[in-house]
Amino acid sequence: LSKAYIVGAGPGDPGLLTVRALQVLQSAEVVLYDRLVSPSILALIPDTAEQIYAGKIEGEQAEVQGFISRMLVEHTLAGKRVVRLKGGDPLVFGRGAEEWRLLREAGVEVELVPGVSAALSVPGLAGIPPTFRGIADGFAVVTGHLRDGSEQVDWSKYASVDTLIILMGVRTRVEIARELIRHGRPPDQPVAFIERGATPAERVILATLRDVAEGGVEVENPAVFVAGEVVRLRPFLVDGLGLAQLLDRAECLEVDPT
Amino acid sequence: LSKAYIVGAGPGDPGLLTVRALQVLQSAEVVLYDRLVSPSILALIPDTAEQIYAGKIEGEQAEVQGFISRMLVEHTLAGKRVVRLKGGDPLVFGRGAEEWRLLREAGVEVELVPGVSAALSVPGLAGIPPTFRGIADGFAVVTGHLRDGSEQVDWSKYASVDTLIILMGVRTRVEIARELIRHGRPPDQPVAFIERGATPAERVILATLRDVAEGGVEVENPAVFVAGEVVRLRPFLVDGLGLAQLLDRAECLEVDPT
Repeated sequence: LSKAYIVGAGPGDPGLLTVRALQVLQSAEVVLYDRLVSPSILALIPDTAEQIYAGKIEGEQAEVQGFISRMLVEHTLAGKRVVRLKGGDPLVFGRGAEEWRLLREAGVEVELVPGVSAALSVPGLAGIPPTFRGIADGFAVVTGHLRDGSEQVDWSKYASVDTLIILMGVRTRVEIARELIRHGRPPDQPVAFIERGATPAERVILATLRDVAEGGVEVENPAVFVAGEVVRLRPFLVDGLGLAQLLDRAECLEVDPT
Repeated sequence: LSKAYIVGAGPGDPGLLTVRALQVLQSAEVVLYDRLVSPSILALIPDTAEQIYAGKIEGEQAEVQGFISRMLVEHTLAGKRVVRLKGGDPLVFGRGAEEWRLLREAGVEVELVPGVSAALSVPGLAGIPPTFRGIADGFAVVTGHLRDGSEQVDWSKYASVDTLIILMGVRTRVEIARELIRHGRPPDQPVAFIERGATPAERVILATLRDVAEGGVEVENPAVFVAGEVVRLRPFLVDGLGLAQLLDRAECLEVDPT
């Protein structure tokens, strides 16, 4: 039976690849990868392997997805060791489960190699934990990307969770913040955008949900958008502030002026 | 400056450790680990390292936590290479961020090594993806553990999310399911409990939220509790069913009789 590998690349740092992902990549014959996979991870793929950048394939989204799935199936049935490499965890958005399903329908065995999700690790590395006892009993992860411009996420479903982590929400951040406030999320709640997270070029922008709704927060892609009281923990974790010091810093939240 | 490592061990399979976690573990001098870290991962720690099982420390939870943090600080300040090893991702419940904060207050540098979260990977490996285009735009992860029996998670905050993943919710599953239904989650929504996920002894129990609320679903710890339409995808991903086959299988959901 032929077998394909659906592999998570983690948030970008090669050290955050899993041991199994590294093994699978190093013995790959064909690797089909997405835009969000970092160059330092692609450098680990053997020279002998064919590397296919899925972002280069043009056409309607549904066509592109069909083409990617057919390539995966054809190379696998031809006896190649095929790896589908995705940023973060392969089942958190990005259609990993759709590809898994199409491979199974074609009679291909699939090994899933879960990855470190950027949704959790990027805020975490920036000193913003998804959960904290007494502050956040849970968190939600949602895509901010409006599919084909025609559909929209129903933010009422997510407005009341403790920590809200939004991927692909930079472009639509003003609308998202307005919708969240409209559905009852406090306008003065702290938010953070972590640009280029888990890399040395990381930049963290702190603001309030109201600032974002009013259009006053400049952010560059790619960035993870976090809204919740846990954002206030960053100075304790990153700068090592004690409680007394934090109380002295009434303005612990500020909008980056750049 | 002294430095401590807060490291995620992933869901249990040593292949799902990150490359960085493996490096850090193999050069550790003191490892303080939790109940949820698997024996096959502990086997990777060098014999020369002191291994301390945090679950053995007795007392009130707050005292225990203080004791663990003091041990971390003292061993680190004494010049040891100290690793705090936690199941899954260290910042998803489990007080990883609290320990990070106490280490920083004590002047200790911290390196966070994010891990593969069991909350996402255990359902994923069982063929239940947290997201799926058109079915789930997002997911939430919540603890089902009622702290000290005195407080309770406010389930109204999480009842409307697409996919709901609950950790430490086996004991309180009946109450959780009732609360979710009371706050508007559909009683006939499919749910899954994945016992001993990401191990060869994995067992998946399928039911509906109503079955759980009525007390009819037997589950053993440890298990991840998932509620959402994505549970219906499991036969496509695991058994490779095509759409036609699934329509023939009206009773794709069943309560495991054991």
